[in-house]
Amino acid sequence: MRVALIQQRSYESKEATIKRTLELIDQVAREADLIVLQELHQGPYFCQSEDPSRFDLARDFELDVEFWRWVSEGRNVVLVASLFEERGPGLYHNSAIVLDRGQIAGKYRKMHIPDDPGFYEKFYFAPGDLGFEPIDTSIGRLGVLVCWDQWFPEAARIMALKGAQLLIYPTAIGWFPEDPQEEKERQLDAWITIQRGHAIANGLPLVCVNRVGFEADPSGCLEGIQFWGNSFACGPQGELLVRLSTDQEEAQVVEIDLERIREVRNIWPFLRDRRVESYGCLLKRFCD
Amino acid sequence: MRVALIQQRSYESKEATIKRTLELIDQVAREADLIVLQELHQGPYFCQSEDPSRFDLARDFELDVEFWRWVSEGRNVVLVASLFEERGPGLYHNSAIVLDRGQIAGKYRKMHIPDDPGFYEKFYFAPGDLGFEPIDTSIGRLGVLVCWDQWFPEAARIMALKGAQLLIYPTAIGWFPEDPQEEKERQLDAWITIQRGHAIANGLPLVCVNRVGFEADPSGCLEGIQFWGNSFACGPQGELLVRLSTDQEEAQVVEIDLERIREVRNIWPFLRDRRVESYGCLLKRFCD
Repeated sequence: MRVALIQQRSYESKEATIKRTLELIDQVAREADLIVLQELHQGPYFCQSEDPSRFDLARDFELDVEFWRWVSEGRNVVLVASLFEERGPGLYHNSAIVLDRGQIAGKYRKMHIPDDPGFYEKFYFAPGDLGFEPIDTSIGRLGVLVCWDQWFPEAARIMALKGAQLLIYPTAIGWFPEDPQEEKERQLDAWITIQRGHAIANGLPLVCVNRVGFEADPSGCLEGIQFWGNSFACGPQGELLVRLSTDQEEAQVVEIDLERIREVRNIWPFLRDRRVESYGCLLKRFCD
Repeated sequence: MRVALIQQRSYESKEATIKRTLELIDQVAREADLIVLQELHQGPYFCQSEDPSRFDLARDFELDVEFWRWVSEGRNVVLVASLFEERGPGLYHNSAIVLDRGQIAGKYRKMHIPDDPGFYEKFYFAPGDLGFEPIDTSIGRLGVLVCWDQWFPEAARIMALKGAQLLIYPTAIGWFPEDPQEEKERQLDAWITIQRGHAIANGLPLVCVNRVGFEADPSGCLEGIQFWGNSFACGPQGELLVRLSTDQEEAQVVEIDLERIREVRNIWPFLRDRRVESYGCLLKRFCD
């Protein structure tokens, strides 16, 4: 499977941002079976402040889906889009849509919602209610998750137990310019490490696509976020297959061999040895 | 908390191996609050072949516990020992015992049991039946797990949910000499990465102590195992604090700051956002 990672900046308007996305897509579409876009790729990461007017960005969700469906048809690819979904008045989700050569293959609504200074997602997004369900496509069963999900081993494990063949994380994560350099390095390294850990634990390849570039905090409370790029793909032993830059837009294609899932799991048969009868505590918030 | 990692070879006899362990302990005991020994540190890794005569190694379990209790008292430390336990005729466990300055603080019986060429543990060890229970000591609540457990995010997570302050893995893992170099590198890297991932996912420091040196397969079926050392400790962002060599015996002390658990979890509040109501699938073998 040939997978394209599209890592880009946000531009002055939705139109300009999408135009740039299409340019990057067209650099690689002919060499790719699957194209993965970053989280909320149609515009800026608007969750840096809590602003009710930003809910308007979700109003065209159906049109947005139709547009990316059309893109997937024209390029003859499977496409993972990440969109702001208005489900009804006052009810919104951070959703990933999988488009399969002109068909809507499925939808995932972000399950784990962060809320930290500069990432006020609990204000914007209701927690997903579709569960952790892989999405079947013409090229395989895709375990699509979104950003904050990448810190939770449970999400990756459930996708694996449901037969996902590839873990996919559209993402928007970056540094605060005011943090010390050592903290920035620890954060970036932790982010890559934990996701490689999910690949290893589940014997699955993984693709993560992050945005790049600085976006100022429109509220002025914080300086803003320097999105750290470093989109990457790894194989089922966590081996890095490709890693993009920290500060440049890039469209890169990587070959992922799904046969390796079986090979690696046959030498590291973790799924055989899980002690499922002793895992009850995982269904509790805390076991005090 | 000052933690000593004791990484060593196996010698020609139990007596010689323990003598060397005590030498290494005495190099660091005065600087350490906690000493962690490798998996089944009293002798060779006997699971390279299935040989019923090896069950005799477990007969002195009670005496072994008494000996390491005495060591912990004499050195005034908390000690994690890894012993072959005869529970009754024909019933054996791979057990870790925590000795706290002369007291038996608790026991953990290895829950996940591997079985792969050269690691025939399902022949020797009944799966643990004590669950994933942290052990309280005078220096903190220790999440003691053993070797193969290190590949299972569930084990680390449950220890964290039960209030463990440090994840600890006595280990015996190595390379087959006949494997290609790239495969060896992937395996070692995966082993460190997934454990760092557990530290990150749970906001906990982690200590892993592995054996070192070549041990021939006594059955002659395989060449043997080159135990790869690389014992290490990391903090709650997965940041490496110390990493030992690939081929040398070593006793090293590392300072672990338990205050960082709270600091890191306060900026990365993963425990807040788990979707426990949607994790039911984790209690199944597979969700097909």
